[in-house]
Amino acid sequence: MSEFAWPQGKAAAAAFTFDVDAESAVLWNDETVGARMSIMSHQAYGPLVGVPRILDMLDRHQIASTFFVPGHTAVRYPEAIRSIVAAGHEIAHHGYLHEQPTSLTLEEEIDVLDKGLVALADVAGVRPTGYRAPMWDLSWRTPALLAERGFLYDSSLMDADHPYELSITPGASESLVELPIQWALDDWEQYCFLPDVSGSGLIESPRKARELWQLEFDGLRRVGGCWVLTNHPFLSGRPSRAAELDDLMRYVLGHADVWVTNLATIAEHVRSLGLAPRTITPPG
Amino acid sequence: MSEFAWPQGKAAAAAFTFDVDAESAVLWNDETVGARMSIMSHQAYGPLVGVPRILDMLDRHQIASTFFVPGHTAVRYPEAIRSIVAAGHEIAHHGYLHEQPTSLTLEEEIDVLDKGLVALADVAGVRPTGYRAPMWDLSWRTPALLAERGFLYDSSLMDADHPYELSITPGASESLVELPIQWALDDWEQYCFLPDVSGSGLIESPRKARELWQLEFDGLRRVGGCWVLTNHPFLSGRPSRAAELDDLMRYVLGHADVWVTNLATIAEHVRSLGLAPRTITPPG
Amino acid sequence: MSEFAWPQGKAAAAAFTFDVDAESAVLWNDETVGARMSIMSHQAYGPLVGVPRILDMLDRHQIASTFFVPGHTAVRYPEAIRSIVAAGHEIAHHGYLHEQPTSLTLEEEIDVLDKGLVALADVAGVRPTGYRAPMWDLSWRTPALLAERGFLYDSSLMDADHPYELSITPGASESLVELPIQWALDDWEQYCFLPDVSGSGLIESPRKARELWQLEFDGLRRVGGCWVLTNHPFLSGRPSRAAELDDLMRYVLGHADVWVTNLATIAEHVRSLGLAPRTITPPG
Amino acid sequence: MSEFAWPQGKAAAAAFTFDVDAESAVLWNDETVGARMSIMSHQAYGPLVGVPRILDMLDRHQIASTFFVPGHTAVRYPEAIRSIVAAGHEIAHHGYLHEQPTSLTLEEEIDVLDKGLVALADVAGVRPTGYRAPMWDLSWRTPALLAERGFLYDSSLMDADHPYELSITPGASESLVELPIQWALDDWEQYCFLPDVSGSGLIESPRKARELWQLEFDGLRRVGGCWVLTNHPFLSGRPSRAAELDDLMRYVLGHADVWVTNLATIAEHVRSLGLAPRTITPPG
Repeated sequence: MSEFAWPQGKAAAAAFTFDVDAESAVLWNDETVGARMSIMSHQAYGPLVGVPRILDMLDRHQIASTFFVPGHTAVRYPEAIRSIVAAGHEIAHHGYLHEQPTSLTLEEEIDVLDKGLVALADVAGVRPTGYRAPMWDLSWRTPALLAERGFLYDSSLMDADHPYELSITPGASESLVELPIQWALDDWEQYCFLPDVSGSGLIESPRKARELWQLEFDGLRRVGGCWVLTNHPFLSGRPSRAAELDDLMRYVLGHADVWVTNLATIAEHVRSLGLAPRTITPPG
Repeated sequence: MSEFAWPQGKAAAAAFTFDVDAESAVLWNDETVGARMSIMSHQAYGPLVGVPRILDMLDRHQIASTFFVPGHTAVRYPEAIRSIVAAGHEIAHHGYLHEQPTSLTLEEEIDVLDKGLVALADVAGVRPTGYRAPMWDLSWRTPALLAERGFLYDSSLMDADHPYELSITPGASESLVELPIQWALDDWEQYCFLPDVSGSGLIESPRKARELWQLEFDGLRRVGGCWVLTNHPFLSGRPSRAAELDDLMRYVLGHADVWVTNLATIAEHVRSLGLAPRTITPPG
Repeated sequence: MSEFAWPQGKAAAAAFTFDVDAESAVLWNDETVGARMSIMSHQAYGPLVGVPRILDMLDRHQIASTFFVPGHTAVRYPEAIRSIVAAGHEIAHHGYLHEQPTSLTLEEEIDVLDKGLVALADVAGVRPTGYRAPMWDLSWRTPALLAERGFLYDSSLMDADHPYELSITPGASESLVELPIQWALDDWEQYCFLPDVSGSGLIESPRKARELWQLEFDGLRRVGGCWVLTNHPFLSGRPSRAAELDDLMRYVLGHADVWVTNLATIAEHVRSLGLAPRTITPPG
Repeated sequence: MSEFAWPQGKAAAAAFTFDVDAESAVLWNDETVGARMSIMSHQAYGPLVGVPRILDMLDRHQIASTFFVPGHTAVRYPEAIRSIVAAGHEIAHHGYLHEQPTSLTLEEEIDVLDKGLVALADVAGVRPTGYRAPMWDLSWRTPALLAERGFLYDSSLMDADHPYELSITPGASESLVELPIQWALDDWEQYCFLPDVSGSGLIESPRKARELWQLEFDGLRRVGGCWVLTNHPFLSGRPSRAAELDDLMRYVLGHADVWVTNLATIAEHVRSLGLAPRTITPPG
C-alpha cells in the first residue's frame, strides 16, 4: 500500500476519461486520409453516436468524467462538445489536429497549443486546466509551455502508479500535476483497426478488454494508486463495448474505498497536498 | 433505445452478408500474386467450398442473405454465382477486381463500376441495387456515381448504428440508403492470414470471433440498431468457422424481436420511411 | 457430409504432420541470419529436442506420421532424420533450404527439387513420394516438375476439404494427388516469434492453439474431410505445446470413425479411387 | 523424463529472472527516442516502481532471483540497482545500452562488454558471473569473449530444455555454462507496446500470460528441465501483472520437487557436474 493521501479516507482513485479524437487522429500527418469517406465515417462515429451514449452512461452512474478534445473536433462537432459541457463534465486539451508534440518544432508546438485553446474557448466557452499529449507523446518542453498557459495538470506520463508534482523543467520549483496513464488502460490497442492507417489488424472481444482493465483496477486499488482509463468514443462507443464499459463502471463504483471522479478534481486535490516537485531528466 | 422504425413491430434488424472476393481481393494492386498457386487456391476455397456450405446453412435456417460479388469472381466462378441467385439470395456490387475506390481516378472508378454491372448481368442476369466498396473504402464521389446508376443503397460507412438516407453529395436532395457496417463485424481481422499478402499473422479461434459478433448483436439489439455481419466464404466457409456461424444464426433467429433479412429488403424499408437525407461533409 | 470414399467404412481422415525446417526456414533469402547464434539455436531446438519428443509421442499413440524435411536439415541433422525413418514414419520433400517456389526461376526450382532428393537419399536412403512447398507457396509449374520426378502427392493447396487428383497442368490427364492444408491448422501463426525475422510478435497459449485445431477437426470430421495438422518441432516440440498436442492426439484417436495415418498412405488410397483429375487454371 | 541431475533429489529447476532494461532498450539504435518524454517515462517505470514491487514480492516468497542490468541502467538508477544487491539477489550483465551483439563489430562488442562491467563495478561493486545478450541475440564470438572475462554462464540460447556446458568455440575444451531460455517465457511479447518503437500493438491480459507461463512450467517440470522466466520491471511491475506473477510464484513454490533459485546458483551446480562441453557450429 502506497502512502499517497487520498481525500475522505479513500484508499485509491479512479477516473474514466475519453479522448474525442474523431477525424483529427487520422488526418494529422496524412491529409490524404481525408479523401477516404469510410475512414472519416469510422472516426465520426465518436462524436455522433459514441458521445451521446457515453454521456447517458455517465449520467446513469453519476460519474464525473474528463473528455480530451482536439480543437479540430470542437470546430467540426460543436454540438457534441457543448453537450459534454452541458452534462457537467470536464473538457481538457488534446492538441488541435492530434499532433504528436515530439514531431513538432517549438514554434509548431506553441501554435497548436494556442489554436486548441482558442477552439475550446470559441466553441464551448471553456478554458481547460488539463492536457493530454496526442498519442501520449509528450516532449520535454511541453510541461513548461503548459505552465506558461496556466494549466494545472498533464496526463501523458507512465512512470508512477499515482499522481505527483512534476517540475516543469529539471530542477525548477514551478510544477505541473502529473496524472499518469498507461498503454494497457487504453482501448486503442484492443479495438482499433483501420487498414493501412492504424491498428495491428486484430480486434479483441470487449470481454477481454474489460478483464484487462478490471484486473488493473484491482491491482491499482490494492496499491493505493490512481486508475485512469482512456476510451475513445469512436471505439468504445459501439454498443457491446459500451455495455462492458457500463458494467465496469458498476464494478468500480461498487468499491466504496475508491474515489471516482474526473481528472481536474483529482489534480486539485494533488495540488492541495503541497508535494515537493519531482524532476525528470532526459537521458544523457 | 433508438427511435428507428422497424417493420412488424420489430426492435432491431440483422443481416448475414457475404463478400465473395475469391482471387480478386489479392490480385488487385499486385498481379504477381496470380503466380502463386497456393494463394490462388486459398481464395478459390470461397466459391468452390464456402459458398455451397453457406447456401446450405442459409437454407436450413431460411435466412435471406446478401452476397457482394466482384465482377471478376462472377466471370471466373459463374456456377457459384448462379447457385446463389437460384437459392433466392441477393447479389450486390463489390467492384470488378475488388478495387478500392479511393485509389482510383474518377474515370477508373466509373469504369470498374460499369464493368462490375456488366459482369453481374452477363453471368447471373442480375442488376444489383446494392453496393459495398471493396475494403469498405468509399470515395466521396462514389454515392453520386451509384445514384446515377440507379442503386438504392450502399453498405460501406461506419458512423451509425442504424440505416439512414445519405445525400449523394453534400446538401443534395437526392439520396442513397446507407446500411452501416463496422470492422468488428467482419471475419477478415479474425481469420485472414496470407504471408506477405494479408493479415496480422495471428489466426483466432472461431469461438472468439463468435463471442465478439454475438456480443455486438446483443448490443445493437438493445439500442434498436441494424447488425450487419460480413463474412468471406474463403474464410468463414471452413468447417469449424461455419459451425460457429451456424450456431450464431440459431442464436440470432432465437430473438423474435429482431428482423432477419437481406440488405435490399432492409434498404427498401428504409426508403419507404421517407427520411430526410443526411449530409456528410469532407474535413476542411 | 461429402461423398468422399474413405477406406474401412471411415467417415473422415486425420494426419499429424511435421515440417522439420530447423535453420533452413530462416536462412533462405537472408543468409545474414546465420550470424545470429540465438536464432540458430531457436531453430535447432527442432531436430535436437522436438523430434525425439514427438517421436516418443507418436510411438505411445501408435500414429504413423509424415515429416517434411528440407535437404539442408537432413545434411545438418542426419541422426534426427534417420531416427524418424527408424521409427517407421514417412519422410517427404520440403525443398533444400526451404525455398519458396514462386520466388525461384524454373532452373532454380528444378535445382532445389533435385538437391532435396539427393540429400534425402544420401542421408536417409529415402526416395520421397510426397512434397510440400515451403511456406505452402506452390508455383503453377511445380506439379509437373513433381510428376516428372515420380512424386505421388503434393500437400500445399487450400481449395478443398478433402483430397483430389490434380492435373499437373491445366487439362492434362496426368495428375498428382493433392492433400489440402490450411493456415489455421499450422502452429507457426500461433507460436512463432523471432524479432525482425518472423512472427506477429504475439505468442499464443497452447490451450488456444489446441482449441482452434480441435474445433476444425470436429468440423472436418462432420463433413467427411481430411484434417491435416502441420506442426514444427522447433515450435510444438516445447513441453507445454507437446503436452497439448499429446492430448489432441488422444482426442483424435478417440473417434473410431476417423482414419488416422500418414499422408503417403492417404495419397495411395486416393490414387486407388481412380478419380478424374481436376484442372486449376491461373487467373487470366 | 530427462536424465539431468538436479541437486537434493529435485526433479526440475525454476528461476524468476528480470531484465532491468529501463531506457536503454529503446535508446539503442535510435537515440531520437530520448526526445520523447512519455516513452522515457514508460521505461523509467521499471527501476522506479517495478523493481521495489518485485523485490518485495521476492522477499515475501523468499526467492533468490537474477537481475540482468545494462550498464546504462546502473548509471542512471544506482539506487535501484543497489537495492537489488542489498536484497541479496544476483546482478548479471546485459550489455551497456542493450546493444544486440550481432549488430556490433568485434571491437564494439568488446567495448560494450567492458563498459558494462565497469558500470556494474562502479555502481554496485559487483563482478557478474552471468550474461544475457540483449534481445537474446548472441553472436558466435560472444561465448569466447565471456570466457576471457571470467564469466561462468550465459543465458541466451534456445536449443535445450535444460542447462549444458557450451564450448566457447566449436571444438574448444573451454566452456561456458548455458542456461537456455525461450521467447514464450518472456513478458515482452505479451505486454509491450510503444507505438512506432516496439510491440505488435496488442496487449494481453495478465491471465493469458500467466496461463502460458504456468503451462510451460508444468511441461518443463514433467521433463526434468529448467524453467527460466524473463520479466521486465517496466512491464510486469504494473500492479495487475505483478499480482499474477505473485500468484505464479506461489504456484511454482508449491511444487516441492522443483529447485527454485537464481541463475548463478544453477550455473554453479551445472559446472560441478563436470559435463562434457557441447559444440554448436554455425550453418555452412
